[in-house]
Amino acid sequence: MGLRAVLFDIDDTLFSTTQFAKAARRNAVHAMVETGLDLPEEVVLRELEEVLAEFTSNYDHHFDQLLRRLRPKALESVNPALIVAAGVAAYHDTKFRELKPFDDVIPLLAALRAAGVITGIVTHGWTIKQAEKIVRLGLVPHLDKRAVFISDQLGISKPNPKIYALALRDLGLQPPEAMYVGDSPSHDVTPPKSLGMKAVWARRASRYAPTAGDAIPDLVVEDFVELRSALRTDYGLAV
Amino acid sequence: MGLRAVLFDIDDTLFSTTQFAKAARRNAVHAMVETGLDLPEEVVLRELEEVLAEFTSNYDHHFDQLLRRLRPKALESVNPALIVAAGVAAYHDTKFRELKPFDDVIPLLAALRAAGVITGIVTHGWTIKQAEKIVRLGLVPHLDKRAVFISDQLGISKPNPKIYALALRDLGLQPPEAMYVGDSPSHDVTPPKSLGMKAVWARRASRYAPTAGDAIPDLVVEDFVELRSALRTDYGLAV
Repeated sequence: MGLRAVLFDIDDTLFSTTQFAKAARRNAVHAMVETGLDLPEEVVLRELEEVLAEFTSNYDHHFDQLLRRLRPKALESVNPALIVAAGVAAYHDTKFRELKPFDDVIPLLAALRAAGVITGIVTHGWTIKQAEKIVRLGLVPHLDKRAVFISDQLGISKPNPKIYALALRDLGLQPPEAMYVGDSPSHDVTPPKSLGMKAVWARRASRYAPTAGDAIPDLVVEDFVELRSALRTDYGLAV
Repeated sequence: MGLRAVLFDIDDTLFSTTQFAKAARRNAVHAMVETGLDLPEEVVLRELEEVLAEFTSNYDHHFDQLLRRLRPKALESVNPALIVAAGVAAYHDTKFRELKPFDDVIPLLAALRAAGVITGIVTHGWTIKQAEKIVRLGLVPHLDKRAVFISDQLGISKPNPKIYALALRDLGLQPPEAMYVGDSPSHDVTPPKSLGMKAVWARRASRYAPTAGDAIPDLVVEDFVELRSALRTDYGLAV
């Protein structure tokens, strides 16, 4: 049975979430210091990392908390709202303006589309955040726009295999006709394998190692040049 | 008594809120249509303007409502989250990335600072939104960073003259030593005049006309070249 669709995870698969978050934090701290926060950047950065660890990433007031914790002298002569706004603006600019996929992502998606293969996304997260990433990463022209499955929108979350089963049903595919590519053995390999799909562990930005209970992936790849080559030689796709 | 401070309104005084909001709406609609919304841009734009009129500007789901109202055919083949995210991203990019003050704003602020005059902001609105505008407009290096007064942060809103009185007190100024510049006769001229401050009606982007109850401004200016010239000749400032 030939491969008719390749579906992808987003975070740490199509771009390095960690690397962008790190750059965003650094730029935010730099902007805050430039706006008058009178402390060394390393001190502010270390405190920001603590705030981010203590509050969730969907919390709205990290930078306000940061100023409350630091109690800088500067607040006697600078309206704190300016420091917070400078940090938030620099953070958003980095995370959204500079967001781009790994260099080999768009070429692979374009080649798959040209070969008549469905390209899509199955992702865990909040609808607006994940959809914005897809837009900002420039993926929209290279995806089948039906084939975007976001856990928050479906009420089913990874690692529940139902999210993959739902994608197959909506796209009219049998499990062996679809491949999933992701960075997490437990979320991105084991569940689709349990349905009979093909699954690829993309290791480049992965923070996870497979554990004893995890299924064996059909492929382990460092990057998408390697994946593309395997799709050509092992799966007979003209990519 | 010499002039020691010039304080400014933001919206429709330092930039045209109306013009930027219009460009943002147009760019959002264009991005939504490009992402698969299969309706003429004029139709979508007209509906978006209705949504914005019916819901407040601090409402978070304008684009979701827009799609609910339009019920486009496209939703059979495009995940609506992609269309919403494309609209939101284009809207934010225009409103924040392309935000810039009128050409004569920064030169005037820089000249005032160089002449030893305090430059500041008194503005009505939400703290984070107004502070972000100040940052994105590039005003921070040209303001006295203590002299930023935002209604939401103070619990006092225009046209209550207390917001101006508080600014004077915090900056250690007598009313005749401070000038306020804004686009609204009732919010930006009458209240500061009632305290004995100088007040300038900046007409360039104003959507308001003075009414019978409004105080007479000390100056009416079309732009900040005109204001700068008056500050030099009528107020003896070296700007």
